[in-house]
Amino acid sequence: MNYELKSLVQQKIDNLNKPKGSLGRLEELAMQICLVQQTLTPELRHPCHLLLGADHGIEREGVSVSPREVTWQQMLNFTRGGGGVNMFCRQHGFHLRIVDVGVDYDFSIDHSPLTIDHSATREEADANNGQWSMVNGQSIEFIDRKIARGTRNFRYEAAMSEAEYQQALAIGAQLCDDCAAEGCNVLCIGEMGIGNTSPSSIWMHLFEQIPLDQCIGAGAGLDAPGIRHKREVLGEAVGRFLDTMPQYSVADAVRYFGGFEMVTAIGAMLRAAERHMLVLVDGFIMTACAVAAIRLQPDVQACMIFTHQGDESGHRLMLEGIGARPLLSLGLRLGEGTGALCAYPIVDSAVRMMREMNNFERAHITKYF
Amino acid sequence: MNYELKSLVQQKIDNLNKPKGSLGRLEELAMQICLVQQTLTPELRHPCHLLLGADHGIEREGVSVSPREVTWQQMLNFTRGGGGVNMFCRQHGFHLRIVDVGVDYDFSIDHSPLTIDHSATREEADANNGQWSMVNGQSIEFIDRKIARGTRNFRYEAAMSEAEYQQALAIGAQLCDDCAAEGCNVLCIGEMGIGNTSPSSIWMHLFEQIPLDQCIGAGAGLDAPGIRHKREVLGEAVGRFLDTMPQYSVADAVRYFGGFEMVTAIGAMLRAAERHMLVLVDGFIMTACAVAAIRLQPDVQACMIFTHQGDESGHRLMLEGIGARPLLSLGLRLGEGTGALCAYPIVDSAVRMMREMNNFERAHITKYF
Repeated sequence: MNYELKSLVQQKIDNLNKPKGSLGRLEELAMQICLVQQTLTPELRHPCHLLLGADHGIEREGVSVSPREVTWQQMLNFTRGGGGVNMFCRQHGFHLRIVDVGVDYDFSIDHSPLTIDHSATREEADANNGQWSMVNGQSIEFIDRKIARGTRNFRYEAAMSEAEYQQALAIGAQLCDDCAAEGCNVLCIGEMGIGNTSPSSIWMHLFEQIPLDQCIGAGAGLDAPGIRHKREVLGEAVGRFLDTMPQYSVADAVRYFGGFEMVTAIGAMLRAAERHMLVLVDGFIMTACAVAAIRLQPDVQACMIFTHQGDESGHRLMLEGIGARPLLSLGLRLGEGTGALCAYPIVDSAVRMMREMNNFERAHITKYF
Repeated sequence: MNYELKSLVQQKIDNLNKPKGSLGRLEELAMQICLVQQTLTPELRHPCHLLLGADHGIEREGVSVSPREVTWQQMLNFTRGGGGVNMFCRQHGFHLRIVDVGVDYDFSIDHSPLTIDHSATREEADANNGQWSMVNGQSIEFIDRKIARGTRNFRYEAAMSEAEYQQALAIGAQLCDDCAAEGCNVLCIGEMGIGNTSPSSIWMHLFEQIPLDQCIGAGAGLDAPGIRHKREVLGEAVGRFLDTMPQYSVADAVRYFGGFEMVTAIGAMLRAAERHMLVLVDGFIMTACAVAAIRLQPDVQACMIFTHQGDESGHRLMLEGIGARPLLSLGLRLGEGTGALCAYPIVDSAVRMMREMNNFERAHITKYF
């Protein structure tokens, strides 16, 4: 922490043309962003949204209301511009990178994104093996980084091998680097992976010491018997894990239960923090990834902006555990990083406050407050 | 209420490519907007921000931490593009109309907005006696509709005459009409008027039957003795009013205590509702105006979007009284309509959801949820 910078930032904020503290959370955000960017005049450049998709072995246990084919169907839908995430990316000028890190589907065959509308080309697409297209005026990139066609079923064995775990972390770091290379300094991360509330609940249980019951919710719409079944399956899985690795490390738990999209997200978060980039975090699953990243490397929290508080009590508990107060509470539970995208204009406002508002001297206002 | 339209809108929302209800407050907003606009494909056109300024006789009683000259100083600052409101208007593409309806200052003499940077001209400016200028790429219009140089002091007499009251309502209606004539269908209203928390507190007390103590807060930063003094002054004023007009109507109370900017806001709200335009309402003062407008004409609430919940308990009570749940809670207390502007992208998201999201059929997604 740079204490001198902190006091300079506070001085600048307090001398802006407004009653002290009257821009509330925007002032706190501005402080955070200035400290991350090490400047008094922060900026947001080239925002990118990484939408990471993968399938989960645990889905085979019926812990989710939707079947795994929804993962690839939605991934395809995103490439066509029709998802919630597309709408928000268009609205807020985010470059959307849809990354297959482990979807149980061969996108290159019949539903190749290559067959979708290509109204523009980009040379860089080749360089990173990506496929880029303009869909409804939106720049969408489909990137194939498939590690495997889904993780293994953690009810019986570790979801991924050590090599796969390292690969996922490295992919995340590289995706972050690619964004940074384009000038990006603010990243949203979203996920698509049927079944991924299950590893999230377990991470929350293990990393935040919250009883498993309080970590398990309805996901995308389970009924009461469904939740009971999910509780049994996850309890059994955690039991087996603890029997196998009583002295487990954070990394062990991340690898044993994580999805490829989740570990990739963690890799991107860790790299973003190294690069002083901001990461907008929303939702239950991304918050679980953020908690895991923080347990692996506590410094990363400084660059994280928690954007949305869902209605689930589990999500609230997890946020409280790391002392995070999200910006919004709009009852969103779509996933895909939509809560983070939705909060982006507020982050932008905080930055504009530091760049555009007059101070009292320039405004010739009698400062009585 | 058009029940057929309501059920068609709900059907469309439920068939969008997302788990039912998963866009939370955005879905509720979309419903409201569709009903106001009487359509399944709503749109937001040419958003305008009316920043209404006026002075208050009650300010002479020391009920505010800032002196009245801050009203004109801030109004001038807004014309120069340096206020909080300017920043938010630029960010969200709002046309900003700064309207003097009763500021205790002659803007035409030494600080004329005419002397500020004019990098563009507009013929329409003449037509409505407005002065229009481009400041930092922002379209700002300064409009002179001064009714008087502030209201009278309602500690001793009615703040305005019946003629002034009618004039303020008519100005508000005309301002709304002018915006509509440009194609605007969504209006933000902000205020600048040192002392205007006092009439707001009294309206809240009279219209919502909330004890006066709970209606009085720190305004822009009063200390405890300041709040006690404010309580005494307002209590005395309410007592005198009730003695004079024991059978008062809503209009009587609005006229007796209101500021010109506040009654103008009410006039704009009433006309906006007639025109099926949306009105974004934030803050303590604008919420008090909204409550007054609703008491005058209950139908207007349908077109109001409550955007921000301040930290003041009085504001919360007032919102609860009309059953409003604001979108944001960011601790903003700057006024100027900044909370409403800050929430605009969320309103925009709700509209985009209805226009841009695929439904399940088009997206080829297995609908299990």
